[in-house]
Amino acid sequence: MISKNRIKQINALKQKKNRQEIGLFIVEGKKLADEILKSNFCIQTIVATTEWLAENFNILPDCEIVETNEAGLKKVSGLTTAQKVLLLVEIPKNHSSESDSEKLILALDNINDPGNLGTIIRIADWFGVGKVVCSLCSVDVFNPKAVQATMGAIARVGVIYADLTKYIGNAKKNNLPVYGTFLKGKNIYNERLTRNGIIVMGSEARGISPEIEKLIDQKIHIPSFPAAQPTSESLNISTATAIVCAEFRRRCI
Amino acid sequence: MISKNRIKQINALKQKKNRQEIGLFIVEGKKLADEILKSNFCIQTIVATTEWLAENFNILPDCEIVETNEAGLKKVSGLTTAQKVLLLVEIPKNHSSESDSEKLILALDNINDPGNLGTIIRIADWFGVGKVVCSLCSVDVFNPKAVQATMGAIARVGVIYADLTKYIGNAKKNNLPVYGTFLKGKNIYNERLTRNGIIVMGSEARGISPEIEKLIDQKIHIPSFPAAQPTSESLNISTATAIVCAEFRRRCI
Repeated sequence: MISKNRIKQINALKQKKNRQEIGLFIVEGKKLADEILKSNFCIQTIVATTEWLAENFNILPDCEIVETNEAGLKKVSGLTTAQKVLLLVEIPKNHSSESDSEKLILALDNINDPGNLGTIIRIADWFGVGKVVCSLCSVDVFNPKAVQATMGAIARVGVIYADLTKYIGNAKKNNLPVYGTFLKGKNIYNERLTRNGIIVMGSEARGISPEIEKLIDQKIHIPSFPAAQPTSESLNISTATAIVCAEFRRRCI
Repeated sequence: MISKNRIKQINALKQKKNRQEIGLFIVEGKKLADEILKSNFCIQTIVATTEWLAENFNILPDCEIVETNEAGLKKVSGLTTAQKVLLLVEIPKNHSSESDSEKLILALDNINDPGNLGTIIRIADWFGVGKVVCSLCSVDVFNPKAVQATMGAIARVGVIYADLTKYIGNAKKNNLPVYGTFLKGKNIYNERLTRNGIIVMGSEARGISPEIEKLIDQKIHIPSFPAAQPTSESLNISTATAIVCAEFRRRCI
């Protein structure tokens, strides 16, 4: 059974300050747990039904196991549907030492919505974008909604938090081209796009901030269709990221 | 002031069966209200702060006005941030009589998530997709979360609910090509794509159903990058829709 103290501890992890203090984040559901179990993440605790534990006994890592039932899991779940498994996973340290010069990197300038961040990580995974760099004020990637929206891609994509001005400044010294999406940018389909570089995406409400705009080498834009017809003011940030990443990769195939 | 009865009536509209019975849906927030006020939608009631009403007095339609304060609006809001305006808008009747032969149409086979549906309508708006046809079991487009995610695009994109098998069957009689996205489809970048046609997108969990699959002329797929690297199982449905629509339109520019 799951103790009252344990319930309290897990629910505390739904808040960023507690996650940072304790150094753990929550992963819920079979599919996501599968991905994490296969990854390099370090699992501290598995809370699961007897059934899930029996099905997965041969792949369980060396960690604390809390056996409970679906009612027990419901008490710690952030989802509306009852799950069979929940993991407490160690938050990895920022590891930004590896070279970026050969990579395509996404830089997110103050992204606010955890669902958007998670979806962008899933997109990065699909398109082989090795790293997602979030500005320091961006939403926490270990927010349960963000983790959920990655659908497991968080196990494969490196996410770091950094001062974007400094990060991009350094990258430019290494001749990495810097792209940014702007409503008044140039039609992406007419632009030269490279295999490596940094693609900056702005915040949901305010786009790319003026300090970061100064660092952009190439301002790009996804054209609406047909050109002159009244349409939405913009695309959602994860939608725009998807189209931009797809176009960068299309050029390489 | 806003009466208790009115609060009850508005909150009832958060449920599909009440929306269908009463024939109204909720629109919240300045930006979305602006779009609806400019559209052909018929507004029944405006609940707004004195300030919003003063700012917009010259564009108010002939409808019931309920003046209140932000505390009053909070009692009926479905959003976490307090809004200055909420509209009760008449649900339009399905109008599917116009010809589809020249259009690009999206068909959604049992989409479940209101946020995804709203985002797809915003994508359709951006790419000039004239109509979104949802299967009968799909989530209600007038769900407040769906309306919100459209960011106003609902004012420009026609959304209908139909038996998809019949709808697509009829379209095929008119020689409209039918595309569908499949994990095992052909690389979209190597396929011939037309200016018109139906693009079928499957449900979040199960993809395109076997009955609908039989009607697809061209099975397409968004390739991951690099080709052989382990990656996510799939892309989110709204992400995939965005990339597919962008690619159809890129061919036309």
